[in-house]
Amino acid sequence: MSSVAVSPLAPKTYPEMPAIDGVRIATAKAGIKYKGRVDLMAMVFDEGTAVAGVLTTSKCPSAPVDLCREHLAGGRARILVVNAGNANAFTGKKGRHTTAVAARAAAEAAGCSEGEVFLSSTGVIGEPLDPSHFERHLSDMVAGAAGDRWTEAAHAIMTTDTFPKLVTRTVTLGDAEVTINAIAKGAGMIAPDMATMLSYLATDAPIAAPVLQALLSRYTASTFNAITVDSDTSTSDTLLAFATGKASARGAPTIETIDDPRLAAFETAFEACLLDLALMLARDGEGATKLIRVEVIGAVSGASAKRIAMSIANSPLVKTAVTGEDANWGRVVMAVGKAGEPADRDRLAIWFGDILVASEGERAESYSEAATSAYMKNDEIVIRADIGLGEGRFTVWTCNLTKEYVAINGDYRS
Amino acid sequence: MSSVAVSPLAPKTYPEMPAIDGVRIATAKAGIKYKGRVDLMAMVFDEGTAVAGVLTTSKCPSAPVDLCREHLAGGRARILVVNAGNANAFTGKKGRHTTAVAARAAAEAAGCSEGEVFLSSTGVIGEPLDPSHFERHLSDMVAGAAGDRWTEAAHAIMTTDTFPKLVTRTVTLGDAEVTINAIAKGAGMIAPDMATMLSYLATDAPIAAPVLQALLSRYTASTFNAITVDSDTSTSDTLLAFATGKASARGAPTIETIDDPRLAAFETAFEACLLDLALMLARDGEGATKLIRVEVIGAVSGASAKRIAMSIANSPLVKTAVTGEDANWGRVVMAVGKAGEPADRDRLAIWFGDILVASEGERAESYSEAATSAYMKNDEIVIRADIGLGEGRFTVWTCNLTKEYVAINGDYRS
Repeated sequence: MSSVAVSPLAPKTYPEMPAIDGVRIATAKAGIKYKGRVDLMAMVFDEGTAVAGVLTTSKCPSAPVDLCREHLAGGRARILVVNAGNANAFTGKKGRHTTAVAARAAAEAAGCSEGEVFLSSTGVIGEPLDPSHFERHLSDMVAGAAGDRWTEAAHAIMTTDTFPKLVTRTVTLGDAEVTINAIAKGAGMIAPDMATMLSYLATDAPIAAPVLQALLSRYTASTFNAITVDSDTSTSDTLLAFATGKASARGAPTIETIDDPRLAAFETAFEACLLDLALMLARDGEGATKLIRVEVIGAVSGASAKRIAMSIANSPLVKTAVTGEDANWGRVVMAVGKAGEPADRDRLAIWFGDILVASEGERAESYSEAATSAYMKNDEIVIRADIGLGEGRFTVWTCNLTKEYVAINGDYRS
Repeated sequence: MSSVAVSPLAPKTYPEMPAIDGVRIATAKAGIKYKGRVDLMAMVFDEGTAVAGVLTTSKCPSAPVDLCREHLAGGRARILVVNAGNANAFTGKKGRHTTAVAARAAAEAAGCSEGEVFLSSTGVIGEPLDPSHFERHLSDMVAGAAGDRWTEAAHAIMTTDTFPKLVTRTVTLGDAEVTINAIAKGAGMIAPDMATMLSYLATDAPIAAPVLQALLSRYTASTFNAITVDSDTSTSDTLLAFATGKASARGAPTIETIDDPRLAAFETAFEACLLDLALMLARDGEGATKLIRVEVIGAVSGASAKRIAMSIANSPLVKTAVTGEDANWGRVVMAVGKAGEPADRDRLAIWFGDILVASEGERAESYSEAATSAYMKNDEIVIRADIGLGEGRFTVWTCNLTKEYVAINGDYRS
């Protein structure tokens, strides 16, 4: 992994991450797979922390995903433990044994019930994960946890990521300032649903678990589930949101319903955090050198627009054309055509950026190869397709397909 | 295109193609896009030739596909004209004008009605195709056509193909020998349906058009529609079958129904021809160095098995793992999981070749990294997944994903 340089699409600066009241973090070098780097992260929450989550739809989920699904029903969290290097997926009974041992060790360390423990594992699939890592480290980690370690946390959960993914927003809830911090990891095996692969958001705002869940469900559709790197969906995708409620002490109102008008600013910031992280995942797509925004408008419905947009965004031919800096709109036509959704060749219009390249079933009269070629040199490419049949629209983000993607994924385990 | 060497998976020898009674072929260097190579092919059929076809399901088909769809209704063919270098797709009114002019020129040259003309175009999408190429060449081509030019025909229709695709079979129908010849082209933008991109089969057997159509429909499902290179579906995919009926003169019976028991040997040979060509397409997948057979068994239905098999075969992570000669069965689990079909992690079993690598939700006890690594060095890799839930099974073929795929498709037009 370490042979890969930082993505050319990485952010130029990283945010200073403030502490979140009620959240303490610790990391450790457990040597699970990687040597000499942090690969284990614990996030400890004060009593009264609400939790919500969205998990992979894979029919073959990892053992930790099964555990999270079970514990989410309780709506309460005291500790999150994440390891990198081994996904504990397709590990059968051994995998369930490992999550059981890890949950017990985490609960003991945090002084909580096992139902308040959340686990994630990311890395190679199918290798047994030795549970002793958790027994050996968690007690010391919890004892030494501190609030100002969000950047370390983002580093600890990386696998093939070339840069850590962090975002923070501070907004007003009632008369109090509240903060949202979030981190994510993921660079490949990224497609709806979920696209994360792993992402954790924490806030000191007093948001009831059902509201937190409603916010997640509402905004993953247009953020994490609107990005795709390679159309592959992980067995481990996990997005968890934690609300400690500590801002109550500073006068923040407790939000019990999603319709509460006091939620507006928080809701906007919440969505922005998810979108920022999702775009960072696309920017860190394995081997990516271009971020691609695919906007489909004029489809017969929003769902139809999404399927067409995903067909374009997942097309290897579209993605390699962008790599070649070639405005090959013929491949966009092909991808619209193969989506299986209502489309009429003679009504279709396609833009690269602001340049109309095709309309009414043929190349636009104004088309200029020179202008589109110049546009294609940008780091961020917008492909817009107007299907011309209705009002349905959807936007997805992806990245280009390069030789480096093949190199990274053809030499992962060996 | 010419910079790409012949695929390492190309056949070691090519068949001698016999003439088919009632079929004459001509090729020309029309200079449509390529300079100094044949790029135009005409296949002329004697009166009484039946035709059947399967065409792309793309919602944005090319102009020649529209024409073929219209003319197939008549069931009669006298001339097929195919050009390489320009797909005449997404060319709007200009495209329809070109097919109209080409059909008129072909009908005049062959002395037939326009409804007996079939056209295909392959190459770049969205560029107007100058109809004068057809007006200039077809009359001379038809005049000079001859029966022994199948190999030239296979060359004339190539685009990014690294080798010509030809197959021939001779079988007994009644007491007479009949011959099937078939050619195809295609290396990328290959996925169901259709996977061809272009394929033409001709026989001297007297097969009525509805029977020919029934045979095509029956056997494309397990051949052309069971291969995938990159999940992309062309706007131009066309498979046409022509039966001149000339073997009647040698005593072959005319086949009027698909149930005719005399059809058995012919039917077997027909399917074999389609499968051979389909596998050649997978072997010539852009940049391919490995042929991959994905067998899914134990799914809840055949349709479910096909969706799971396609999910595995189209997974960039599975395909790059094969490139890395890594038996990364974790990615196979991932691909089974994301297919959205019924699957149970704890019943799943996976083999690479004859080597059981995973069963009952975890790595097989007998698993040997050395043995699987040795197996992965083969040119042909079999991935078998037993879903463990039912009797549904389906086999698909694909190829690996390499840096060369990206190079070929990132530098196609420029």
